[in-house]
Amino acid sequence: MLLLLLHRAVAPGFRQAYRLKSTPARLCIRACCTNDSFQPQRSSFTFSGDNSSTRGWRVMGTLLGLGAVLACHDQQCRASQESPRRYTREEVKSHSSPETGVWVTLGCEVFDITEFVDIHPGGASKLMLAAGGPLEPFWALYAVHNQPHVREILAQYKIGELSPDDKAPSILKTSDPYADDPIRHSALKVNTQRPFNAEPPPELLTENYITPNPIFFTRNHLPVPNVDPDTYRLNVVGPPGGQSLCLSLDDLYQFPKHEITVTLQCAGNRRSEMTQFKEVRGLEWSLGAISTARWAGARLCDVLAQAGYQLCETEAHVCFEGLDSDPTGTAYGASIPLARAMDPEAEVLLAYEMNGQPLPRDHGFPVRVVVPGVVGARHVKWLGKVSVEPEESFSHWQRRDYKGFSPSVDWDTVDFDSAPSIQELPIQSAITQPKEGETIGSGEVTVKGYAWSGGGRAVVRVDVSLDGGLTWQVAELEGEEQRARKAWAWRLWHLQAPLPAGIKELNIVCKAVDESYNVQPDTVAPIWNLRGVLNNAWHRVHVHVTP
Amino acid sequence: MLLLLLHRAVAPGFRQAYRLKSTPARLCIRACCTNDSFQPQRSSFTFSGDNSSTRGWRVMGTLLGLGAVLACHDQQCRASQESPRRYTREEVKSHSSPETGVWVTLGCEVFDITEFVDIHPGGASKLMLAAGGPLEPFWALYAVHNQPHVREILAQYKIGELSPDDKAPSILKTSDPYADDPIRHSALKVNTQRPFNAEPPPELLTENYITPNPIFFTRNHLPVPNVDPDTYRLNVVGPPGGQSLCLSLDDLYQFPKHEITVTLQCAGNRRSEMTQFKEVRGLEWSLGAISTARWAGARLCDVLAQAGYQLCETEAHVCFEGLDSDPTGTAYGASIPLARAMDPEAEVLLAYEMNGQPLPRDHGFPVRVVVPGVVGARHVKWLGKVSVEPEESFSHWQRRDYKGFSPSVDWDTVDFDSAPSIQELPIQSAITQPKEGETIGSGEVTVKGYAWSGGGRAVVRVDVSLDGGLTWQVAELEGEEQRARKAWAWRLWHLQAPLPAGIKELNIVCKAVDESYNVQPDTVAPIWNLRGVLNNAWHRVHVHVTP
Repeated sequence: MLLLLLHRAVAPGFRQAYRLKSTPARLCIRACCTNDSFQPQRSSFTFSGDNSSTRGWRVMGTLLGLGAVLACHDQQCRASQESPRRYTREEVKSHSSPETGVWVTLGCEVFDITEFVDIHPGGASKLMLAAGGPLEPFWALYAVHNQPHVREILAQYKIGELSPDDKAPSILKTSDPYADDPIRHSALKVNTQRPFNAEPPPELLTENYITPNPIFFTRNHLPVPNVDPDTYRLNVVGPPGGQSLCLSLDDLYQFPKHEITVTLQCAGNRRSEMTQFKEVRGLEWSLGAISTARWAGARLCDVLAQAGYQLCETEAHVCFEGLDSDPTGTAYGASIPLARAMDPEAEVLLAYEMNGQPLPRDHGFPVRVVVPGVVGARHVKWLGKVSVEPEESFSHWQRRDYKGFSPSVDWDTVDFDSAPSIQELPIQSAITQPKEGETIGSGEVTVKGYAWSGGGRAVVRVDVSLDGGLTWQVAELEGEEQRARKAWAWRLWHLQAPLPAGIKELNIVCKAVDESYNVQPDTVAPIWNLRGVLNNAWHRVHVHVTP
Repeated sequence: MLLLLLHRAVAPGFRQAYRLKSTPARLCIRACCTNDSFQPQRSSFTFSGDNSSTRGWRVMGTLLGLGAVLACHDQQCRASQESPRRYTREEVKSHSSPETGVWVTLGCEVFDITEFVDIHPGGASKLMLAAGGPLEPFWALYAVHNQPHVREILAQYKIGELSPDDKAPSILKTSDPYADDPIRHSALKVNTQRPFNAEPPPELLTENYITPNPIFFTRNHLPVPNVDPDTYRLNVVGPPGGQSLCLSLDDLYQFPKHEITVTLQCAGNRRSEMTQFKEVRGLEWSLGAISTARWAGARLCDVLAQAGYQLCETEAHVCFEGLDSDPTGTAYGASIPLARAMDPEAEVLLAYEMNGQPLPRDHGFPVRVVVPGVVGARHVKWLGKVSVEPEESFSHWQRRDYKGFSPSVDWDTVDFDSAPSIQELPIQSAITQPKEGETIGSGEVTVKGYAWSGGGRAVVRVDVSLDGGLTWQVAELEGEEQRARKAWAWRLWHLQAPLPAGIKELNIVCKAVDESYNVQPDTVAPIWNLRGVLNNAWHRVHVHVTP
């Protein structure tokens, strides 16, 4: 189900559409994808489906003046299909600015997307990278474009075709930036292939306290860089008047090796449950965007100290840049407060080992940041650069993503500056056995799952209900004991409970409590947010019982 | 409404009652008070009321074999009323052990409570303090005894009266340990007078960001000691091989003076809402067991450093003892982890000023501990002793109170060792305006309240709903900006919202979010616990709107 999502960036587009109303607007907006993987100016509006809630949005859309925009002026499109006009690549190339008009090609077709640039869901600047040339290299990077409804939008802007004798340039043949991505384990449940995002299935997730590397959940924002360990250098920008470090892997190995067990969780874990309440923009993670590994590496505080940094009274931030980057050269980036980075007790690592092995490529080979107790998005992989700045990273993912908002905020009203970037995550738990909809035997039930809290807060209790939350039983915690205030890794848990004779179904619920006695909220709706992050409502599983 | 609450300590009593079934058991248990103020072996069972849920408990009670216990064997009681036997004080005094029988007096009446000792809700050891003598000094300390149903229980054990010429000893005239308590502000809503527990009314609570000293909520466990500031000494026990400190107030003033704004909250704040769901044992706090002051004093880490302490790798605890004590000489006590005490960033104070004034007597004159971000119970008042121990304080309030449990745990099954002592508190918010049941004008509504989280986690957002949680609006935060990770003080907030014409009532709800994105749970029932602590469910206020 897709719903109409409005973004501020769309508004100028609408204004433009109004201005152009007397001309053939070529705007036949029927649907537009959402893109979770990489959109520095992420925005979209979607319009499809025929259920009642969509109809409600349609009414609102009309009230907002969308009616005019939605009128489909595709006469010219059809005309061009009948007798396509021919253009050379040179002609297309000469249309690469608002002044000349913005043309692009896809296959042999030519499109004048001048009017679309400002309402491009991914932002005008990203689209302008393709101005005057083929779309394929960019659609290859942002694979979310390869969907019928996106092609339908594009079709409205078609003005002709390339001359048959104007051959496609070689770039098209070698332009798949994901061609060099590693081969993955077949057990992973893939959310997107490009960039690669996948989670282990529930039945494997809690089989082991330590998640095996091949099925550790993977959250990539861009293609996986292929880094040569021999030439790899980590650039640590020194303080004013100090000296920058340029560290090889061997240099990093010289720092005391620190090894800790840390659970990583994506902010979007359990997003699919939020989607069930109301559409959000993001990958459809089930409950497996969380995994646990034993990480080893140099402590960030030791490296920063060697570079000459000290903890200062004024607020500062350690900014990380990955070696993964988009076609503009913008690297993945994120930051954490300097206070956390410099605190030996916080145990922030520049990790080069995962479960006793060199980092797998999908998990940041050769070096990634591990920030215990903090959302996965700050654990920057393929780490290329570390610097200390007075402000948070200016990265899209720090400032325009991975933030939480009130359920009342939509893409029309969201002010990303009004919310803090997610750092520590709230208390979380989920049921991995039995699975939703499963039929279990009578007699007794075994419920299994995980529980974890951010900020090093230990899990002190997991309550399980078999009757939808009316009565509760305390689950048994497994695995390693957690250290107070440094409980970086999850607790697995189980409950074995007899079932009353004749019971036909169970509404299993779990909720955890951490050492600050924070608890999980009862329901998803009141914590729903437009990006679908931070879902830590009670996890619920409905199962049938054989008679 | 009182419900039957069973405690493990009661079970032996029942067994005893069975054993004695053939003798006049003198057990006419109709009701028994609960005591929140001071009960190292707190326990009680209550049985009264006639509503349906009580009837349900009565059935269960019968199943458990209570029927036999509840049979009222008061023949001997009535007999003694007809021609009371006379005893001297000497005779009473000679009955002060299980071997001789345990007698006590109240007024001129004499009671043989031998059989009751083991089922005393406050524990056998506390009751034995009164063995062979008058109850008055103890009932004066634990004023909860002064209730009709407690006198009814006692009446079953009456065996006679004191000889008319055996005058009451002078102790009765001077035995009120609360006689020297300070005079309090009349605006305070008193929960118990002895010990004094009171909160400011909601309409005053959020009038000021800083709570004026006279209406700062007061949570006393014992009588207020009257400390002479000239002779006051703080005993800081030194490390092994080190030297202990004996600090006068002037000595404390020599340490750097540190001043911070800190909100204190009792673990039982908003307990009354929990009681509405199901009876708990504790003071009926409304939403005012929280207040904010500017505290000044020496940092605990500075004092501990002077005593020769350093942060060590092994877990250790800083134990505090108050100068308030019970008749056995047991002082109020609590502890916090050494890691917090030694962390300058945690800003734990030995405070001697509250809002620019010497501490008021009710708030710990001359010195109290202030542990920012931590439950009020650890902010030990009238501080007499500080020591560093390998284990938490052995105080009742550290080990047998102020802990959270699953809703499934009752006084029969509770294992206090299974839960951690409450330290940091979870995210909290409440509505102080309008008040429950109020009738407000049409047109618009102004909602006001407070929000606070433990552990220095800043409040990042407060959502307010006027329709019971279906839709939300973001409230405006007031007051001082909070420091990240050191947000020790609350945020006040308000929301001004127009009301739809013709609306007749509002179901106002608030919920807050902290910087770890922890949220408040939707409802009270799933976080209900036998002590009624840690209620941070959405706060709900129902109001009428004038037509």
